[in-house]
Amino acid sequence: MSSEAAFISSLRALATHPAARNFEDDCAVLELGGETLVLTHDMMVEGTHYPPGADMADVAWKLVAVNLSDLAAKGAEPIGVLLGHMLGNGDDAFAKGLAEVLGHYNVPLLGGDTVSGKGPKSHGLTAIGRATHVPVPSRTGAQVGDALWVTGELGGAMMGLEALQRGESGHTAYSHPVPLLTEGQALAPHVTAMMDVSDGLLLDSFRMAEASRVSIAIDSKSAPIAAPEERRMEALTWGDDYQLLFTLPAGEEPPVPATNIGQVEPRGFAPLFLDGEPLLNSEGLGYSHN
Amino acid sequence: MSSEAAFISSLRALATHPAARNFEDDCAVLELGGETLVLTHDMMVEGTHYPPGADMADVAWKLVAVNLSDLAAKGAEPIGVLLGHMLGNGDDAFAKGLAEVLGHYNVPLLGGDTVSGKGPKSHGLTAIGRATHVPVPSRTGAQVGDALWVTGELGGAMMGLEALQRGESGHTAYSHPVPLLTEGQALAPHVTAMMDVSDGLLLDSFRMAEASRVSIAIDSKSAPIAAPEERRMEALTWGDDYQLLFTLPAGEEPPVPATNIGQVEPRGFAPLFLDGEPLLNSEGLGYSHN
Repeated sequence: MSSEAAFISSLRALATHPAARNFEDDCAVLELGGETLVLTHDMMVEGTHYPPGADMADVAWKLVAVNLSDLAAKGAEPIGVLLGHMLGNGDDAFAKGLAEVLGHYNVPLLGGDTVSGKGPKSHGLTAIGRATHVPVPSRTGAQVGDALWVTGELGGAMMGLEALQRGESGHTAYSHPVPLLTEGQALAPHVTAMMDVSDGLLLDSFRMAEASRVSIAIDSKSAPIAAPEERRMEALTWGDDYQLLFTLPAGEEPPVPATNIGQVEPRGFAPLFLDGEPLLNSEGLGYSHN
Repeated sequence: MSSEAAFISSLRALATHPAARNFEDDCAVLELGGETLVLTHDMMVEGTHYPPGADMADVAWKLVAVNLSDLAAKGAEPIGVLLGHMLGNGDDAFAKGLAEVLGHYNVPLLGGDTVSGKGPKSHGLTAIGRATHVPVPSRTGAQVGDALWVTGELGGAMMGLEALQRGESGHTAYSHPVPLLTEGQALAPHVTAMMDVSDGLLLDSFRMAEASRVSIAIDSKSAPIAAPEERRMEALTWGDDYQLLFTLPAGEEPPVPATNIGQVEPRGFAPLFLDGEPLLNSEGLGYSHN
């Protein structure tokens, strides 16, 4: 086990409170005074999650959007966010982007911290939401016989990044992901399992299968992609799309537009079967968590 | 106004929700389901908040302790924390220190994120607490005629850092600050204003006076210090002590050990009077916020 994997394991060993579902992979879900709080924290680091010189307004949008997407996958309604921000070049743009995304989703900034530092900038966001349906959906609930569904198209962020790299301007699915809050709330009462596709459809499906102790079979051709057909596999392994991946009992139609891309089977030889081929480990199915 | 000050102002302009008391300077206080939540987020950056090569177990302790201290100043009981952590050298020690401090204060790790990055490491922590008394104390409530009190001694962190710099080992007030959770909860029903002394007694008193729109008069000789007498002024302007600074109506005795170091006066010529001398601006009274 790498030292990073060992470290994350040690954090998971610490995170044993019932509210701590699965450190890093899942939101915390906390019962409090008759409400159910959903809490998530994601960081973005210059050079890792965005290139040096990126438009900091886009970084602010994405920082908020990816955290709200975690709430969306829980069917939660955002209450507010706390920001941790390293000061630096582009702060004016960052403030503008932050105001834009918080205004767009009507989410208040509740507090936070600004710090000075040398070297690459880092930014953290804690999003706090209120569950609109209990039990709160998780990635662990997929049942044998369920159908696997995904909202929207995969690969949009990949195409968006390439457009940015070609020097095209404007908002793309890469720079301006859209957290599916309304869809998540509509789905929450119906799904047996749900998560957002942050690291690639195949990797996230693999994780859902592992968490639910089932196998998931995906028909790659059925997945809608926002990329040329010859890049289908890339689209299914690229991350950052923030679509919702969920399971429903067979025969049930989702209350929001989505595509049936596979089904849940008894745990077999591998967690994931792609067009009938077993995928035994998650290597190469998406991009690394950090 | 510097670009950093402008940025922080723009965040404050965004943080207008009633729960967002004063961005960065104060915890968020959120009514939810009959409970009152207190939320805070502080970051620590290598090279800014701790020297490269520091014992990462100490960094983990301090990261948690300074956030719990924010909860202490609200009389809040911790519910849990979310961690944002940049992976790197010393992660084993960090995990050990984190387990130690969370175990010591019986606070669960609820979730978070780990990230890779090049350059100085940064770490963020969000602490979530439940108010034990409402209204939740704030720095804005000091009333003319109140007495000003502080728990413990000032300057301990300064002496602790110097001990570390001399190569002495072991826990110091600098490396292992103690959040005064029990004291904060005992004080909350009695105080008119309360905050923790994170950036220096004089600077934080100045801020309390500004927030409460009063003047505060401090008798420097009356403040207990954990340093040689000739370093009294340094002890009163050094940060990181995490004592509780609070005001009580005149004649009232605090329920925990503390020292009366001054009083609250009508807003006069300056926010702060030190031994009768007006201190008009906060320059030099403590250390900078970031």
